[in-house]
Amino acid sequence: MRLSRLFTKTSKNVPADETAKNAKLLIQAGYIHKEMAGVYAYLPLGLKVLENIKQIVREEMNELGAQEIIMTSLQRQELWEHTDRWNDEKVDVWFKSALKNGTAVGFGWSHEEPITDMMKDFVSSYRDLPANVYQFQTKLRNELRAKSGIMRGREFVMKDLYSYSRSDEEHQKFYDAVTAAYLKVFERVGLGDVTFVTFASGGAFTQFSHEFQTITEAGEDTIFLNRDKKIAVNQEVMNDDVLKQLGLNRGELEEVTAAEVGNIFSFGGAKSEQLGLYFADEDGHEKPVVLGSYGIGITRLMGVIAEHFADDKGLVWPEAVAPAKVYLARLGDSEQATKAADGLYAQLTAKNIGVLYDDRDVRPGEKFADADLLGIPLRVVISDKTVAANQYEVKGRSEAEAKLVDQQALFKTLGLAD
Amino acid sequence: MRLSRLFTKTSKNVPADETAKNAKLLIQAGYIHKEMAGVYAYLPLGLKVLENIKQIVREEMNELGAQEIIMTSLQRQELWEHTDRWNDEKVDVWFKSALKNGTAVGFGWSHEEPITDMMKDFVSSYRDLPANVYQFQTKLRNELRAKSGIMRGREFVMKDLYSYSRSDEEHQKFYDAVTAAYLKVFERVGLGDVTFVTFASGGAFTQFSHEFQTITEAGEDTIFLNRDKKIAVNQEVMNDDVLKQLGLNRGELEEVTAAEVGNIFSFGGAKSEQLGLYFADEDGHEKPVVLGSYGIGITRLMGVIAEHFADDKGLVWPEAVAPAKVYLARLGDSEQATKAADGLYAQLTAKNIGVLYDDRDVRPGEKFADADLLGIPLRVVISDKTVAANQYEVKGRSEAEAKLVDQQALFKTLGLAD
Repeated sequence: MRLSRLFTKTSKNVPADETAKNAKLLIQAGYIHKEMAGVYAYLPLGLKVLENIKQIVREEMNELGAQEIIMTSLQRQELWEHTDRWNDEKVDVWFKSALKNGTAVGFGWSHEEPITDMMKDFVSSYRDLPANVYQFQTKLRNELRAKSGIMRGREFVMKDLYSYSRSDEEHQKFYDAVTAAYLKVFERVGLGDVTFVTFASGGAFTQFSHEFQTITEAGEDTIFLNRDKKIAVNQEVMNDDVLKQLGLNRGELEEVTAAEVGNIFSFGGAKSEQLGLYFADEDGHEKPVVLGSYGIGITRLMGVIAEHFADDKGLVWPEAVAPAKVYLARLGDSEQATKAADGLYAQLTAKNIGVLYDDRDVRPGEKFADADLLGIPLRVVISDKTVAANQYEVKGRSEAEAKLVDQQALFKTLGLAD
Repeated sequence: MRLSRLFTKTSKNVPADETAKNAKLLIQAGYIHKEMAGVYAYLPLGLKVLENIKQIVREEMNELGAQEIIMTSLQRQELWEHTDRWNDEKVDVWFKSALKNGTAVGFGWSHEEPITDMMKDFVSSYRDLPANVYQFQTKLRNELRAKSGIMRGREFVMKDLYSYSRSDEEHQKFYDAVTAAYLKVFERVGLGDVTFVTFASGGAFTQFSHEFQTITEAGEDTIFLNRDKKIAVNQEVMNDDVLKQLGLNRGELEEVTAAEVGNIFSFGGAKSEQLGLYFADEDGHEKPVVLGSYGIGITRLMGVIAEHFADDKGLVWPEAVAPAKVYLARLGDSEQATKAADGLYAQLTAKNIGVLYDDRDVRPGEKFADADLLGIPLRVVISDKTVAANQYEVKGRSEAEAKLVDQQALFKTLGLAD
């Protein structure tokens, strides 16, 4: 993409109505647009980051053998009454409205109920199981407060996965596979070192659920972490009994602030019983299907990545999620610099390397500031000087000094053969 | 995808609560799931068709130089009051709710207002224009009736594109380019022969808007068509004056039922004035930005494709949108048939040919019926007999007879080198 054609622009003004670093930077860089508190649109570069994150998650879900679907936002009252989750006193984040004929409808804040109900069309025998389905869904939640930018939205994207198993053993095997897949996701987006499986409250069906908590000052949770063992305990379940059970000592735990980027739950057969999802086992006995639920907050994850890597110059995207690999800054508009920059842009684009080509008629300082604010992994500068030397000036986003390299070295840096 | 692992199943039962052919077939084939009237979830095969259609549209939008974003479902009352479109008497399809603090919110049924408002962050000078942005958005519309399956939903996916131009001339040039791009989209999804640019009511700003109408009995519109000239007139604007203006004779027009799969509108500067989107021209004069709006109903288009091509055996997908190119049916489970079928499945998958591999332990008749119902373009049968003959039995979805071919001929049919 040529920056002269990109309709968004960076801004020097820090948004006055945002307290969260992620929102400030993402708005200044033109990645997102605030519609109202906790409700953000994703502009071209922001959408690219979001789609990159989704694609990483999608690959890991497909690797698990899960199948992608997309459910609906509009929800039926009757369905949610089966699990007593229509009631606003039980679930305080519903947005509700009504059809023209007066029938109440809700807007999906979760999808366990409709997906489990839908599965009744396809599951009746042990031969139909296991089945694992997921979606990337825009969830709507009527949050009382929304001050954390894209880390807690009233409208946000979640990947939710549901597993339907024949037995606790089959369930546990998949649950463990999801745990491993989630750790791989957080590793791939660059947060592997700072994201930890965390024991948290399990609800009605199990003692614990598991959260994936990423250390960040912007988080809303407090966890107690054993870095060596790579596990943590959420403050909400921290007590002597739990520590003993998990083989942990209070003294070896570090108290840190963290953000929950994922969570996984076991429901046993209880929710299936409420919704009527049964199967006949090999002996013809009817049993409730064993349900597991697994979430990753996709837009929250983007916010946490922004918070974690940003420095005083702006965003710093890990290569796997960056909207482009290269920020190509052309200095001046001489014929030779233009020819060299146009040429490299065409070459890299043809090789499927994402390039933001700063072909604008602005000062070098502004180009460098934008390269930093936008957080593109590699900055490549082409000027009359670099053309004369038959070299490129390159600098990693987090490196202090630029260096001159020839084309072979540049291509090698980008993982290209030549 | 192996059918033994796909969680959806076909059903012999025609849904009793559906009158539309598209909904009946798509539900029976397991492509969609009905949540409530006009509200459908997309299951794995249905999501694939939807994504294939979206990708075709995306490519044509990018070719126009338009930039993809994603706006929000939640909408601010104040914004829509600027254009007098918050009022339920003016717009009768709003779903509305309220934040915890009592602030009213709407759910996006259109996005002209928020996108135009968002552009104010980025547009102030003629140098910032033209700008063309689009999104694939889930629209929510509180329709009184919803009986046309996915052709008219209360929740549906629309591609909406908005153009921001400096002058009527610049606008008209882009408008014409979009017309050409839309025709290319309908050509690529297989509806080129039956989709016509149609003169329709223009609203406040122009005499006409243009619709793209596809001939189908399932449509809700009546148009008057001149097939030779490839243009039509919507009944709503048909009169002698209009015919004269367009150089058409009533006698040469055919009255047909059609579905509106796309529409394009010119707004002039009026909406920008209402919302405060101005730019300074080269002489420093402030002018309202010239707005155009261009929609394609993505889920409706999928419904129209289903309606148009289906026969008495089921769905018939054009190759460009089909969820897989090949339905590979293995008959029996002998070692040699299994080895041959597994081998071909692996080979084609490695070559990025989408294959639905029917490896289920069911009768051949059931496999053939499912191949037809699912509407996959090419059926390939492997049995002991075909293995012994070192051939494959192949049949196009709409062909009456299967024939035996060798691997080279099969691969050629699939557009593969060998």
